[in-house]
Amino acid sequence: MHLDADLDLRLERHLSAPPHAVWRAWTEADLLMRWFAPKPVRTEEATIEPRPGGRFYTRMVMPDGQEIAGDGCILAAEPDRRLVFTDALGPGWRPAAAPFMTAIVTMEPDGDGTAYRAVVLHADRAAREKHEDMGFAQGWGAAADQLEQVAATL
Amino acid sequence: MHLDADLDLRLERHLSAPPHAVWRAWTEADLLMRWFAPKPVRTEEATIEPRPGGRFYTRMVMPDGQEIAGDGCILAAEPDRRLVFTDALGPGWRPAAAPFMTAIVTMEPDGDGTAYRAVVLHADRAAREKHEDMGFAQGWGAAADQLEQVAATL
Repeated sequence: MHLDADLDLRLERHLSAPPHAVWRAWTEADLLMRWFAPKPVRTEEATIEPRPGGRFYTRMVMPDGQEIAGDGCILAAEPDRRLVFTDALGPGWRPAAAPFMTAIVTMEPDGDGTAYRAVVLHADRAAREKHEDMGFAQGWGAAADQLEQVAATL
Repeated sequence: MHLDADLDLRLERHLSAPPHAVWRAWTEADLLMRWFAPKPVRTEEATIEPRPGGRFYTRMVMPDGQEIAGDGCILAAEPDRRLVFTDALGPGWRPAAAPFMTAIVTMEPDGDGTAYRAVVLHADRAAREKHEDMGFAQGWGAAADQLEQVAATL
């Protein structure tokens, strides 16, 4: 990973569930839909194909009914360890119209739980700042809380 | 692969050298520099890290001295079988400023040689047409001739 404080955002958490449960909550669509959008936003549809070139599609609905749909691409899928995806490419690695970010999510055993880390890469400083202003820390933080709750049931 | 005649360009060739030689000519920088740019363009510098997230950098020089440098990302590297790379991402999967194409290069044994295929994916029809007008068929065709010559020496 080529990390850069000017270009990257990151979230680090200890999660009480073990890596395998966190992996399942990320890569099984029915589980993903339960936590991926920070409430009150809902994820109404999700497709995830955890293999390089696989599709990562989500459709989220805001409380006012506005929808946000995104079709991205899985770049790396190492069970219980690392999931990488981007919106710079679509399914089958096709270049996307409006690239914005790549996310590298890692999970490592930490006691009975998981050292959970998400690093989000951007092309330039403006994109990183935009993501920060969109509420990255709050949004990914609230989603991580929800992820922990779902993973704890597995 | 999600192929689409409106969005993709492709090149298919029988090469006289076997897949392993073609793979080496693609993934060893000193060999790549000998064939990658169609003459009289020269590849003066190349870095290739054949692993997901690895760097794929080339600097080409035109006869008039103009330079074309590109920093892309390897997406998949399956020795002697398949190499996938894109300019929509840079090294370490970071989104790029000006995404244009993803190339999927495959090699299969074909008699004593290789069934060689390159499929180049674009985000939209305009990008595909631009690549066609830039001389895709001629450029990739001439490079494939040069690739065959280099691979034949291995």
